[in-house]
Amino acid sequence: MVKVKRLLIALGGNAIKKANEKGTTEEQFRNVAITCKQIARLLKKLNGDDKIAITHGNGPQVGNLLIQQEECSKLVPPQNLDVICAMTQGQIGYMIQQTLQGYLKGIGGGWAKRHVISIVNQVLVSLDDPDFLNPSKPIGNFLTREEVEKLVREKGYVINPPPDKAYFDKKIAGLVIKQVMPMELTPKPFRRVVPSPEPIKNIEADAIKMLFDQGVIVIASGGGGIPVVMNEDGSLRGVFAVIDKDKASEKMAEAINATEFIILTDVEYVMLNFGKPNERPIHEMSIEEAERYLAEGHFAEGSMGPKVLACVRFLKWGGERAIISSLDKIVEAYEGKTGTHIYK
Amino acid sequence: MVKVKRLLIALGGNAIKKANEKGTTEEQFRNVAITCKQIARLLKKLNGDDKIAITHGNGPQVGNLLIQQEECSKLVPPQNLDVICAMTQGQIGYMIQQTLQGYLKGIGGGWAKRHVISIVNQVLVSLDDPDFLNPSKPIGNFLTREEVEKLVREKGYVINPPPDKAYFDKKIAGLVIKQVMPMELTPKPFRRVVPSPEPIKNIEADAIKMLFDQGVIVIASGGGGIPVVMNEDGSLRGVFAVIDKDKASEKMAEAINATEFIILTDVEYVMLNFGKPNERPIHEMSIEEAERYLAEGHFAEGSMGPKVLACVRFLKWGGERAIISSLDKIVEAYEGKTGTHIYK
Repeated sequence: MVKVKRLLIALGGNAIKKANEKGTTEEQFRNVAITCKQIARLLKKLNGDDKIAITHGNGPQVGNLLIQQEECSKLVPPQNLDVICAMTQGQIGYMIQQTLQGYLKGIGGGWAKRHVISIVNQVLVSLDDPDFLNPSKPIGNFLTREEVEKLVREKGYVINPPPDKAYFDKKIAGLVIKQVMPMELTPKPFRRVVPSPEPIKNIEADAIKMLFDQGVIVIASGGGGIPVVMNEDGSLRGVFAVIDKDKASEKMAEAINATEFIILTDVEYVMLNFGKPNERPIHEMSIEEAERYLAEGHFAEGSMGPKVLACVRFLKWGGERAIISSLDKIVEAYEGKTGTHIYK
Repeated sequence: MVKVKRLLIALGGNAIKKANEKGTTEEQFRNVAITCKQIARLLKKLNGDDKIAITHGNGPQVGNLLIQQEECSKLVPPQNLDVICAMTQGQIGYMIQQTLQGYLKGIGGGWAKRHVISIVNQVLVSLDDPDFLNPSKPIGNFLTREEVEKLVREKGYVINPPPDKAYFDKKIAGLVIKQVMPMELTPKPFRRVVPSPEPIKNIEADAIKMLFDQGVIVIASGGGGIPVVMNEDGSLRGVFAVIDKDKASEKMAEAINATEFIILTDVEYVMLNFGKPNERPIHEMSIEEAERYLAEGHFAEGSMGPKVLACVRFLKWGGERAIISSLDKIVEAYEGKTGTHIYK
């Protein structure tokens, strides 16, 4: 008997909105169609009783929604960042759900009968996370000193956050601005930053697993999940933060008891010495090698770094296979012909 | 053995945003807390193995999002109406899900262990629906002739729609303006209109029932569901429309095989001769009476009308009990002490 596979596929932001696009509904559906066509190509290689779940980024969508919410703040109150994240889960979940439902019909092997469902999904973080004292996640455009001063004057932004973790529990997102580049290098050295705390637990893990176990293709943990903290009475509340999508995906992989974890991004391979003359693709690496490379700073922070880290965590937790490759190589990477494979 | 109850609770827009509020995140969470407190009061009266599902309106949230999307259209492309509906499912689903999860802990009787999950949910409509030729659902503010002329000139709006159902399949929502009041009565007789086609089928019905049967408190069909039509190959696509929340709720009640359907709104009773001197509350009415009153025009279109109609359809389909009452009377209505009860 062939063992039933349990896959989590993590889609990067470019699977939904390309960097050079504005992000109209039509553009995003077109990209999602390309993405789902690739996923369908993989499903044809799987058995009809294999299980898959999908998660996705939301960076460009949150960016656009934030602009709309803030530019229009005189007419309509902007929603908090946790609510905006929930909105993008609805938006992107809908687009993937509808499109993949369409593709399933053409696959055969029982896939046409499988349900696809997007879940509104919260992920627990802690206000004790150091990122609440020193927010690390830049969002939105680079800014000049003049633009920053205008934001400070007109909208109450502060430059560098107060060292008080309660700040992001109370204030609206994006009110903190940091200098992220030296002044002499660029006229626009400033950017807004929000905390990016570590995901602790997928709140809806049990219900997601219930669906997954019954063969439903579950879309969850979108955009890293809606960041929530626990109140003293055990109830939850949203906070102003953005959870790293790949780290949150790994928590979702644990939640569904995944055997295989595939992170899809822009590039076919993780690179050693990334951006340097001696850069070279990594075909496979052990957990130990991956950890050493991470420590040596081979992978870009907020980009390839968390992807490799998520794979390492997945394997240490008990996962069997972790792969990082590009969307258009999904089948080839799954079959071991390309992509970066991390193994125990 | 007591028969397990299967309830669908349909929440009106005022359960999430009050008409006199702007709709900040804090205001909406405060309203949702009041709503969930009432639902928790009902759950205490139920048995721990009874099943409930929740659906909700999204009128005020769609209105606010549309303003943000359109006012900011030079910076960020506005999303289509189906996508905006999906966004509000994420937004409102999140708020109800998180808040109800918190309240469940205090109820006892096994409720603390129940999961609450919001689903991104599509509802099938047909482009052959007459509402695509004559859109009936007003959205947004009342407008003067000058405002209308400006919209026509600057944004390409048209006054009265072309009698072509394909129009709403292709063009952006809200481009059609209709005169909804006589000129002599008001300086602002115009409003934007969108089609409000009949719901045919809840697309994710099977997956919703799977969750519901296992005791998950499912939040679905939000805002009447995301309106979709079927392509020739059986795949789906979104259309520019808004489905009536109560009619869509009834389809969801069928999907989960509900025995009881409770529509919560602003008023304790449905009124006969609504708005007239001889208006009086209806304590109970048979299907036949309800249909006669509907035909006689006792109930406001787009308001109490579809609620009564949804109850009639539910009972004709095979439902056992249908109740219309106000949120704060949920327990009393459920116990038969107040509210309007429609029976076979």
